[in-house]
Amino acid sequence: MLPHHDGSALYVSDQAPRPGDTVRVRVRVPEAWGAVASVHVRSTPDREPRFRLAQLLGTADGWQWWEAEVEILNPVNGYRFLISRADGGHWWLNAAGAHDFETLDAEDFKLLSYPAPPDWAAATVMYQIFPDRFGRSPAAALREKPAWGIPAAWGDPVETVQPARSHQFYGGDLDGIGLHLDHLERLGVTMLYLTPVFPAGSSHRYDAQSFDEVDPALGGDAALVRLVEAAHERGFKVIGDLTANHSGDRHEWFRAARHNPAAAESAFYYWLDEQHEHYESWLDVPSLPKFNWTSPELRRRFIEGPDSVVAKWLRAPYHLDGWRIDVANMTGRLQGEDLNAEVRQTIRRTMIAENPDTILLGESTNDASGDFQGDGWHGAMTYTTFTRPVWSWLSKSESPSSFFGLPYGTIPQCDGRAFVDAHLRFTAGYPWRTRLATMNALDTHDTPRFRTHAINGGVGVGFGLSATLPGIPVVFAGDEFGLVGDDGEGSRTPMPWDTAGDPEVAATIDLYAALIHLRTAHPALNGGGMRWVHVGADVLVYVRECADESVLLVAARTAGTVTLPAGAVAGMPALLLGDAALSVAGGRIRLETDGPSFTAWSLPGIVVPDRAPRSSGRPTW
Amino acid sequence: MLPHHDGSALYVSDQAPRPGDTVRVRVRVPEAWGAVASVHVRSTPDREPRFRLAQLLGTADGWQWWEAEVEILNPVNGYRFLISRADGGHWWLNAAGAHDFETLDAEDFKLLSYPAPPDWAAATVMYQIFPDRFGRSPAAALREKPAWGIPAAWGDPVETVQPARSHQFYGGDLDGIGLHLDHLERLGVTMLYLTPVFPAGSSHRYDAQSFDEVDPALGGDAALVRLVEAAHERGFKVIGDLTANHSGDRHEWFRAARHNPAAAESAFYYWLDEQHEHYESWLDVPSLPKFNWTSPELRRRFIEGPDSVVAKWLRAPYHLDGWRIDVANMTGRLQGEDLNAEVRQTIRRTMIAENPDTILLGESTNDASGDFQGDGWHGAMTYTTFTRPVWSWLSKSESPSSFFGLPYGTIPQCDGRAFVDAHLRFTAGYPWRTRLATMNALDTHDTPRFRTHAINGGVGVGFGLSATLPGIPVVFAGDEFGLVGDDGEGSRTPMPWDTAGDPEVAATIDLYAALIHLRTAHPALNGGGMRWVHVGADVLVYVRECADESVLLVAARTAGTVTLPAGAVAGMPALLLGDAALSVAGGRIRLETDGPSFTAWSLPGIVVPDRAPRSSGRPTW
Repeated sequence: MLPHHDGSALYVSDQAPRPGDTVRVRVRVPEAWGAVASVHVRSTPDREPRFRLAQLLGTADGWQWWEAEVEILNPVNGYRFLISRADGGHWWLNAAGAHDFETLDAEDFKLLSYPAPPDWAAATVMYQIFPDRFGRSPAAALREKPAWGIPAAWGDPVETVQPARSHQFYGGDLDGIGLHLDHLERLGVTMLYLTPVFPAGSSHRYDAQSFDEVDPALGGDAALVRLVEAAHERGFKVIGDLTANHSGDRHEWFRAARHNPAAAESAFYYWLDEQHEHYESWLDVPSLPKFNWTSPELRRRFIEGPDSVVAKWLRAPYHLDGWRIDVANMTGRLQGEDLNAEVRQTIRRTMIAENPDTILLGESTNDASGDFQGDGWHGAMTYTTFTRPVWSWLSKSESPSSFFGLPYGTIPQCDGRAFVDAHLRFTAGYPWRTRLATMNALDTHDTPRFRTHAINGGVGVGFGLSATLPGIPVVFAGDEFGLVGDDGEGSRTPMPWDTAGDPEVAATIDLYAALIHLRTAHPALNGGGMRWVHVGADVLVYVRECADESVLLVAARTAGTVTLPAGAVAGMPALLLGDAALSVAGGRIRLETDGPSFTAWSLPGIVVPDRAPRSSGRPTW
Repeated sequence: MLPHHDGSALYVSDQAPRPGDTVRVRVRVPEAWGAVASVHVRSTPDREPRFRLAQLLGTADGWQWWEAEVEILNPVNGYRFLISRADGGHWWLNAAGAHDFETLDAEDFKLLSYPAPPDWAAATVMYQIFPDRFGRSPAAALREKPAWGIPAAWGDPVETVQPARSHQFYGGDLDGIGLHLDHLERLGVTMLYLTPVFPAGSSHRYDAQSFDEVDPALGGDAALVRLVEAAHERGFKVIGDLTANHSGDRHEWFRAARHNPAAAESAFYYWLDEQHEHYESWLDVPSLPKFNWTSPELRRRFIEGPDSVVAKWLRAPYHLDGWRIDVANMTGRLQGEDLNAEVRQTIRRTMIAENPDTILLGESTNDASGDFQGDGWHGAMTYTTFTRPVWSWLSKSESPSSFFGLPYGTIPQCDGRAFVDAHLRFTAGYPWRTRLATMNALDTHDTPRFRTHAINGGVGVGFGLSATLPGIPVVFAGDEFGLVGDDGEGSRTPMPWDTAGDPEVAATIDLYAALIHLRTAHPALNGGGMRWVHVGADVLVYVRECADESVLLVAARTAGTVTLPAGAVAGMPALLLGDAALSVAGGRIRLETDGPSFTAWSLPGIVVPDRAPRSSGRPTW
């Protein structure tokens, strides 16, 4: 066991400090780790290190608690602890762990003085909906199909090759989503994320023709109003999806500007010739011309101020609760130009002016740490922190897969240690807030379905991790029906509603619902501290902690027995969910699983001593 | 042995690519490491990953060489290799080493399309001079001492407590430096770095009163012209030192602006009240008011364009060869404002317009990677990459020391593995170019002297590393005389010229000269590849490689014997310097040291096969 700190309320006195504030930060050190000579906190105001001596608050349940102050002088305030032991050893503690040598600034813990995300961001459970494939209202059959659409019956298989790829039209619509809110309420999710709903030239609609109206094929503006109202009545948030990197080539702005250098929209794109014939586009796909964010008029129409697209859909009568931004990593970036920070900051500023109680997520499928320092995006839709590591830990070996575009050929295998290392490595650069608002997705509309390659019993383990690690749990619609699919396109299967009664499907829905309810019922899982207590090849044990209650979690991919380190937790665990066996032997907790499983126990909250030795009076294991 | 790549010419076809270029990059893989199924290179144009398949060039001396192309589309172009083995393992190779799991973008190898540093940057040897303490010309005695000066005789001890601290005036001058160029030429250094020469209120002169004239106490402008001319005649470069973060409170700009809001210089500083009484200053030291870089007039006078201070001293009659910028890490940064990138880019732009064959170094004493991506500073004066790690490896244990302001109390001890880990960790974020232009200082005018705490025999080992690792070797004037000193102030001892004949001092000077000549005589040490071949607790072995010749280096802090891995190097090593013993036994190289030592051998250059199997026809060990 090692010293521990994270950004949660147990360790940080203020989750939303303002410039000029002073925040108290605490670190806990296991008594068994060795006598401590001193603890310092290092911050770097204006990028110069400053050390402050920490005070010992006292000891409880086998842990010393130390506290120091950090002044909030910059927008991003990095800090780390230096723990000097009586034996002469010096240890640095940062967001990547404990180190016996100096560490990188990028891995510092971070306190932000930017406006905070909404309170609900850390406590939400996302349900991702691909509108063409979720539900079909009676009115849908009466509407004209869009010009791009190749009609498909609800039960038809998804075609993954051209020309049908991305052009099958199943005819799901927004009122069709409204028909299934009972299912979502029973599941327990709290936020619906709709992939684009604007008119476009494909089933995914990432090639928008306009941002000013909802696609009539989905029911138009009025259907969105109806859906959001119905969702809000049940307590769901609803967020939309914007392509800030590009529009479709049929977009009204692009059509006005193409071959027309005099157009007001001319500066919205990057033209490669004077005739405005050729242009920059997303990965050289001609149907996705890239936006040029040097244009003030583009900013005004799209992202800046109350008349912008960003603002319009957040207010009456639509009332969206936020945005997910597509290809956020490339947005505003081209060759020598990088306007990404300006764009994300502008989007968020506009959102705050319209309704600060909204969330802003950015897609950045690889290492996202650089852009996610709290100045714009609240959290990332990324595959580095969770998705790829969990696939590597819980997939069948030799499963052929494109694996998110990485040229492995099969899904690379890893053990639990590597899973935790990767999760730590890619989250260490995030402020705590960003970590809490980052999506822990097993899969999305852009990936194969997790279950396709998961080991038997792996879905519950994977979604257990999604539901209980810091971050936003994500259900891609249909996962709870046990769907499979081998690439992003193939995963966009229409919801098989009529299978809900099948015992296996019903059991999967129940499994998802149980884990989601576990998540939403326990405050410790919604922003509480995060501490690993055992990291093995096949079994991972961690605890989410807060003052009122903690939750002990065990994720196992095989049968196995684990004995936790002495003093790992305090109090008697009470089973919440799952079937691992827990016993106490020789003053230590012993956990036994008989196969892939995910189990949770409740524990008492954490006692933080207040400048005096103190014991909780309960056993420590 | 692991696959290897670095930024040197063996592996990268173009050291100074321009936007739009395509660069060929190569990776070498030991045949003994396992059969390779494929090699990809990942780059991230506009921040989106792109994979290219590498081609096998062939095999030589036990290594497979693979080559792929990277397009230079952005100012900073990160890339890494994915090496898939026939056994199903996948390895990523980046600037931090080889990894069996995904890695951070910040550790990618990097190719820059910014203008390159001057060719000589990677081949220079720096000699740092503190002008008040180096040499005194006959004219010095006739000059009036400055108002701040407390007169000191050349042999007086340096006072480290107030009020004498930083105010002793020994009366060294620029013509006094000119008197000792023979010594510097014999030593073999190639660049003189002068700490500030402008009029100021202290012996260190970091509290400038003007940037427009050389301090008359140092001989004035004419003396600088004489010194630079004499230095250039002998082939030395000479660089100056500018405080871009602050001026002195006696600076003409500050005096004009204080209590005078209407002054033209008013916007040069940050005022805390309307009367311009109180102001922001460096670490709240009132004598060092902080510059406000939002002021266009400050930029014009100081850093931008031909009339600026930055430009003036680079051209006739002064002809400085570059600048070291003080407190570069804090420059332009205050609370919510960060103009650092603008300031460093502007400085460099001005320098290029005046004379592109100049160098720009930035002081950033801790983790410097964020600001050193090639857009301004060529290299860092930092203590993370080399200075602190080498102290920890080569200092006596329990040596009490403030250790660069870190609150350890004593110098933390480490083994060779930790030295290499720290060096790798803090250089992995640098582009190769930045690494080559970063100072490998054992000490500076701001630190204790290395010898003060070094183990017996440690100076030669430490300076051997300084002279042969990628980066700029640094001699802080007096180190070659064996000076000691316990803090930055105490280390500013006047040069003890009259001790040069003492046998121990002469031996130390010879040691420095031998290592400097080793450095300057071998191209492999001036920008060649860098590969560790043995990392032990007490013995480090590495090789600097290029096409014509390689150099094998052994740094040992104790007696010891090391056997290199089979195939570590090819060809028969020929002793260049040092006294470790080398033999070949069982097809492997065996090295034996009988105490702290630094030894170098010459090796043949590296054979890169050209699309056909090829052997150099020489033995591999």
